[in-house]
Amino acid sequence: MLKRISNWSISQKIAISFAFVIFTGSLLLTLPISQLPTSEATYLDNLFTSVSMVCVTGLFTQSVYESYTIFGQIVGMALMQIGGLGLMTLIASVITRFKKRIGLRNRLAVQEGINRGDARGFREYLSDILKYTAVIEGTGFLLMSFRFVPLYGWGRGLFTSLFLSISAFCNAGFDNLGNVSLVDYVHDPLVNFVITSLIILGGIGFSVWFDVTKSIKCFSAKKGKRSLRIFFRSLSLHSRLALLVTVTVIAVGMLFFVAVEYNNPDSIGTFTFPQKLLAGYFQTVTMRTAGFATIDYTTVYPFTLFWFVITMFIGGSPGGTAGGLKTTTFAIVVLMLYNEVRGQSNVNIAHHTIDKQLVRQALVIFMALLGTLILGASLLSILNPEVNFIYVLFESISALATVGVSANLTPTLGRLSQAVLMFLMFAGRIGPITLVDSLAKSDQKVPDVEFSKGNILIG
Amino acid sequence: MLKRISNWSISQKIAISFAFVIFTGSLLLTLPISQLPTSEATYLDNLFTSVSMVCVTGLFTQSVYESYTIFGQIVGMALMQIGGLGLMTLIASVITRFKKRIGLRNRLAVQEGINRGDARGFREYLSDILKYTAVIEGTGFLLMSFRFVPLYGWGRGLFTSLFLSISAFCNAGFDNLGNVSLVDYVHDPLVNFVITSLIILGGIGFSVWFDVTKSIKCFSAKKGKRSLRIFFRSLSLHSRLALLVTVTVIAVGMLFFVAVEYNNPDSIGTFTFPQKLLAGYFQTVTMRTAGFATIDYTTVYPFTLFWFVITMFIGGSPGGTAGGLKTTTFAIVVLMLYNEVRGQSNVNIAHHTIDKQLVRQALVIFMALLGTLILGASLLSILNPEVNFIYVLFESISALATVGVSANLTPTLGRLSQAVLMFLMFAGRIGPITLVDSLAKSDQKVPDVEFSKGNILIG
Ligand SMILES: [K+]
Ligand SMILES: [K+]
Repeated sequence: MLKRISNWSISQKIAISFAFVIFTGSLLLTLPISQLPTSEATYLDNLFTSVSMVCVTGLFTQSVYESYTIFGQIVGMALMQIGGLGLMTLIASVITRFKKRIGLRNRLAVQEGINRGDARGFREYLSDILKYTAVIEGTGFLLMSFRFVPLYGWGRGLFTSLFLSISAFCNAGFDNLGNVSLVDYVHDPLVNFVITSLIILGGIGFSVWFDVTKSIKCFSAKKGKRSLRIFFRSLSLHSRLALLVTVTVIAVGMLFFVAVEYNNPDSIGTFTFPQKLLAGYFQTVTMRTAGFATIDYTTVYPFTLFWFVITMFIGGSPGGTAGGLKTTTFAIVVLMLYNEVRGQSNVNIAHHTIDKQLVRQALVIFMALLGTLILGASLLSILNPEVNFIYVLFESISALATVGVSANLTPTLGRLSQAVLMFLMFAGRIGPITLVDSLAKSDQKVPDVEFSKGNILIG
Repeated sequence: MLKRISNWSISQKIAISFAFVIFTGSLLLTLPISQLPTSEATYLDNLFTSVSMVCVTGLFTQSVYESYTIFGQIVGMALMQIGGLGLMTLIASVITRFKKRIGLRNRLAVQEGINRGDARGFREYLSDILKYTAVIEGTGFLLMSFRFVPLYGWGRGLFTSLFLSISAFCNAGFDNLGNVSLVDYVHDPLVNFVITSLIILGGIGFSVWFDVTKSIKCFSAKKGKRSLRIFFRSLSLHSRLALLVTVTVIAVGMLFFVAVEYNNPDSIGTFTFPQKLLAGYFQTVTMRTAGFATIDYTTVYPFTLFWFVITMFIGGSPGGTAGGLKTTTFAIVVLMLYNEVRGQSNVNIAHHTIDKQLVRQALVIFMALLGTLILGASLLSILNPEVNFIYVLFESISALATVGVSANLTPTLGRLSQAVLMFLMFAGRIGPITLVDSLAKSDQKVPDVEFSKGNILIG
């Protein structure tokens, strides 16, 4: 048995670890001690919640608030934390034994699994991540308790703050407030800014934290001229790219949202200007991977939903708790297109050339994600011909990019459609390529044959 | 002046040639001699028709039947024929002077412009194409006159047959029957099979014709064992791939359409089984680039429209009258994805390896087309927030892939939205990359600098 496990590929080990945690979570959530007396959740609802929590998505068929006891919610927090930190402890053994150079499939698998980008010692890395996580979640917890303790009293106030802090940092998007996410807090600056900060910190990727912290230390120690520009240049190429794309996507997204919805009376048309900006900022940040909502997505214009679909597709940064294509992958695809049109075959960023192999991998990831989205949306649309297609697309990418926003569709779907969403969440969390690879035979070796050049005309 | 023209890039020459023909066409269609007394077409409607005809799309804001006289329709046939055969005569001078090795931008520009794939002498090539075109369109004309002469009498019957034959072969999708394309002929085997045959012959690409004809000649001369398999293998790699993808897309598309719509009472639910198959076959063939319709696209399920969007995106074969991504480009993208997931970096087809540069170009074309589609659909959706997004997407890709099917949306749109559609048709006909390139300065030279490798983490 042990021998058979060691024969599994990395992809298989990761897929099975996630599946194991999900299954265990679903059983724990089904225990009578986890269920409120008024709960209407069946085992399939609990399974859906467990998938959604471990895959840090945030879609649900039965709300946390109406279904689970304090114990059930603690199980939920654990599932989100495990999912968000990437099952690190579970697959640590796999990684440490794993030294030789690895190809795309395995590299992606490991990266998706542990959210890890550099080559530091695993033990040190683990301890650093736990330390950062505790500090950031603790700060979020404290700040939010200023809002929720006065509202709900000490007990529920503190518990709610902790639940939201973990959920936001892990980009899980679950809340234990009710049925409508954070819609009641759309104008609340404290909740908006604490939640969005937690989301951004969780979604930017651990390697960026380490890089920024290191640079801050060096920067403080160094004498001479100091400026934001010099500081930015001292960061690694990866960190600079991730930060730049993150800031750009949020700024452009906010602008588009506010401009298009400005006079929509059903969404933000009746808000004051600062309230519009706040709603735009929150929606854009949350849409990139977190999944909280402060507005009802059935009230916005079709273009806004399409714009959200694109934002979700791009997703957060690699090596964090975010899903989607990832900021850096998106940047490479865009730069490649830009350079090719200008007649350059190299993709250059800030006086560095991106390896052609990496460009190719970025394109493959793009295509795999797009293909999975098309597959999922098609299945959902076939199963639900009466539903407007943009809602189907919205819900599909929300699951696939582990975002978790909903146009109020998920709870109304049949079991088969919910199974499609579970598949999308799982594929999105471990990565479509890792998923396909985990289904292949572990000992399959395909030789990379090269034949004579074939002449094909393309269009 | 002449010196300045010779300084233009190929892309600019092609874009300007098309624009010139479109503009001339719009003026001719606006002449009183072209307009029926009852016509409601303004200059902008005539411009739209001219763009749509030269770009062989088939979308219209005012129907041909209700707007144009026999003279106007003859102008229309000329515009479609010029657009369909790729403005060959107009840009012949450009091509013959053009000998040196050409990069992607220019290669694409020339290819899109003249629909030409191999390196044969231009004069011989031109005469061959005209010969084939005359034979095929003549045959189609004769066959269709068996239907339309009994219906409309000799004069109008023959004229209608000619118009439809040219329109079908050029994949233009215009008809002079009325407002609803070929909906009245949904159960007519003669019209269905003649039109689809013309569409397929026009859309498969001239280089495939030449290859197939050559192989048939060799094959007839040769002695020994003869089989379809051996014949297929004697074709070039390009022809085999184009034929294979064409047959696969049509078969799969027909299957999906019939299966999903089988019981939809608004579309084909009330048809007999053979009628369902015929409607499915016609819709799938026409959707790849032609733009005729025998059903009303507002009656089908959302998934069917989405499936049509994918079919249109893939499009026909390169070097013909078809638009879209093109069959071979699609095949390369799919094979690359398949091979990469299996761990192979080479893209192999039938014991030939596709050049990495070609694979890269296929991906660039894919991305450029997708980007243009997203841009166009976004603009249309912003301008028309009340329209269901799937209709917006359907109409956008119909314009961009020069297909020309319509969910009855185009005539109802405002002028700005119609301008977006004209832009999409133009971009689709000359190719998004050629369009961008034609806007660049002609003497712009970007050195292909290579820096040290940059280390970026992708997702
Ligand atoms: K999420
Ligand atoms: K067409």
